[in-house]
Amino acid sequence: MTFIVEKYGGTSVGSVERINAVADHVAEAHADGQELIVVVSAMSGETNRLLALAEEINPDRSDRETDVLLSTGEQVTIALLSMALQRRGVDARSYTGSQVRILTDNFHGRARILDIDSTRVRGDLKQGRVVVVAGFQGVDQEGNITTLGRGGSDTTAVALAAALGADECRIYTDVDGVYSADPRIVPDARRLDRITVEEMLELASLGAKVLQTRSVEFAGKYKVPLRVLSSFKSGPGTLITYEESSMEQPLISGIAHNRDEAKLTIRGIPDIPGVAYRILGPVSEKHINVDMIIQNVSADGTTDLTFTVHRNDCRTATEVLKQIAEEIGAKEVSGDDNIAKISVVGVGMRSHAGIASTMFKALAEEGINILMIATSEIKISVAVEDKYVELAVRALHKAFGWDQEPVEETIPTAVA
Amino acid sequence: MTFIVEKYGGTSVGSVERINAVADHVAEAHADGQELIVVVSAMSGETNRLLALAEEINPDRSDRETDVLLSTGEQVTIALLSMALQRRGVDARSYTGSQVRILTDNFHGRARILDIDSTRVRGDLKQGRVVVVAGFQGVDQEGNITTLGRGGSDTTAVALAAALGADECRIYTDVDGVYSADPRIVPDARRLDRITVEEMLELASLGAKVLQTRSVEFAGKYKVPLRVLSSFKSGPGTLITYEESSMEQPLISGIAHNRDEAKLTIRGIPDIPGVAYRILGPVSEKHINVDMIIQNVSADGTTDLTFTVHRNDCRTATEVLKQIAEEIGAKEVSGDDNIAKISVVGVGMRSHAGIASTMFKALAEEGINILMIATSEIKISVAVEDKYVELAVRALHKAFGWDQEPVEETIPTAVA
Repeated sequence: MTFIVEKYGGTSVGSVERINAVADHVAEAHADGQELIVVVSAMSGETNRLLALAEEINPDRSDRETDVLLSTGEQVTIALLSMALQRRGVDARSYTGSQVRILTDNFHGRARILDIDSTRVRGDLKQGRVVVVAGFQGVDQEGNITTLGRGGSDTTAVALAAALGADECRIYTDVDGVYSADPRIVPDARRLDRITVEEMLELASLGAKVLQTRSVEFAGKYKVPLRVLSSFKSGPGTLITYEESSMEQPLISGIAHNRDEAKLTIRGIPDIPGVAYRILGPVSEKHINVDMIIQNVSADGTTDLTFTVHRNDCRTATEVLKQIAEEIGAKEVSGDDNIAKISVVGVGMRSHAGIASTMFKALAEEGINILMIATSEIKISVAVEDKYVELAVRALHKAFGWDQEPVEETIPTAVA
Repeated sequence: MTFIVEKYGGTSVGSVERINAVADHVAEAHADGQELIVVVSAMSGETNRLLALAEEINPDRSDRETDVLLSTGEQVTIALLSMALQRRGVDARSYTGSQVRILTDNFHGRARILDIDSTRVRGDLKQGRVVVVAGFQGVDQEGNITTLGRGGSDTTAVALAAALGADECRIYTDVDGVYSADPRIVPDARRLDRITVEEMLELASLGAKVLQTRSVEFAGKYKVPLRVLSSFKSGPGTLITYEESSMEQPLISGIAHNRDEAKLTIRGIPDIPGVAYRILGPVSEKHINVDMIIQNVSADGTTDLTFTVHRNDCRTATEVLKQIAEEIGAKEVSGDDNIAKISVVGVGMRSHAGIASTMFKALAEEGINILMIATSEIKISVAVEDKYVELAVRALHKAFGWDQEPVEETIPTAVA
């Protein structure tokens, strides 16, 4: 018996009609003898509706209450999907994050999963039930409702698959897989049949919005076979693998771009040991992820530090920086959100030199100035001015020779 | 320091504007030094919106999932009201029924409260917080979300007041108190300043829709001072008292009517001892409340049993009856929902004869045929044909001489 965790995002459950389509698909898989946990998001539009109410009432509300409010979104979906399954003769049972119990820390709005109690869910599966779980939400040690933040439902699905040892975790979404580049920018971008978890991690964190970084990290940590596929049309999607790259592995797997970052610079820092930690420690304590980091030494014995964070964190990070600047006697804090980041990713990079020079050459030929560079074993990222994004992605897609057709493989059925 | 449990129904929190009005009122009481627990219902319209979705998806869904769905309604309200209080500088914290923990049995849709864990709520009150609790909902021993059924939020409020020893429980609603009769039918009906708990129990169960029976029972059992008042205009409302009736006690406190019942008859029952229990036991096991009961002996040695139940329970009760009829060899089961029940209630009745004859005379003078009669120490109920309701209520209101003006007393402020 195959044991699958499926996850459907907000668009996939965005109406009664869509919920019925998901129920049809799940009921069919259940009839085929699959053991199933289905993780769902709030119906599309619902979270925004609730947030609008909250904003109207109190823009400065506590995060705790925002989580109490938002978590109702998925709770509605689990009930409705369970009812739809019951109508199809499937014994289904819904669980909120708190009911499962998905234990998290207490950082409301961006909580991290600490533990999953699988007792009740396992009991239901054993009785042949389909278990429907609310994504995006958990509960802290004191019983407060928490939410996991952006893309949290993916994380819920992968965490459940890991905790219960599922054979595969399938993320149904509105795209049919991971592409070599954003198809809206590069018309001949192609769907990847497979991608290594390391590549996916780089792509996810770099702005390919298909999967959330944390869910991929979870998948990688517990070696959960993870597949991204469309809930609107059939197709094999993209499978995230944990194998070593084969000989056929292409040099580059994909090109990602990201407009969600802002660049922060703190200037005139006294150049003493440990000062980078003095600056970045407090930022990290606010649960703000720092991405690219550059440190320059100035002529006058001071140093400049530039780094990027998510735009949503820009205000908080700036406040933190200003306080630190005062404490350590730095001169100036400035921010810039007119930037974009473009990255080429591929495990093939490890054994091939010259990727960087191909990349820089292609950008130079288009007259695009590189503002920051960051590299890892399998990726090279550059920050450029926002306005160059499309041009840069297309130039790189061509420079790395993405012109061959993908090979089709046999496929698991998606929602028809 | 006064410790008050307040409860606001769906209309009172039906919009952002109304929630803000409730928050103003609560913030003012909190500033006056009151300790406060605020129980709220779902925003008016929300429960119907959710039920419509559920009906569309599966009219035969499980009650468990209906409860998961409906309980989101109050969860939205507790979050929004807490945010509104925070905006007014009040430290507020919301709790779902499960979070409090309001432990119930597992009869989804009509669960009964078994126990309330007051630990967390007490801790918050001690820290000067206003505690906002979702009415209508609880959690069973296995962690399943339950709802308490019609008027459940009142029960939540009274149960919290009892468990935590509040000084008063105030039910804010869209009427400004308990009236001697329905003012829509009897224009000169008057608001009662006080009413004994026994009278209120009779009136509540008889269809004065101001308070739900169970909440009054709870209040009576734990002697919780309970007041009904309007959330839309100031006024003292009606206080439910536990004192013995004074000399000034009027003969009759009120006249209630009720169109929510249906009459069920089972005919040709073998007249053997215990047969009434054989019939009504299984009905009660389905958690269906039986109201008026009449048993006639027929000439042929069989007997007929007629009783009334809530209309919503009519279908289930009929099914149960048909099965029993077969088992015990009764002849026929029939139902009729063209009936209405009218009751006169008053503790003064105990020491005065002649109430029944006044009542029957008034109805006879209007040509109204009485179908069933039931009496208790402090009430007389009659079932009549549906179409006579208004006429009967007005005739009785006049017959019992309700023409004097009520005496005003000093008042707690309602939401202005």
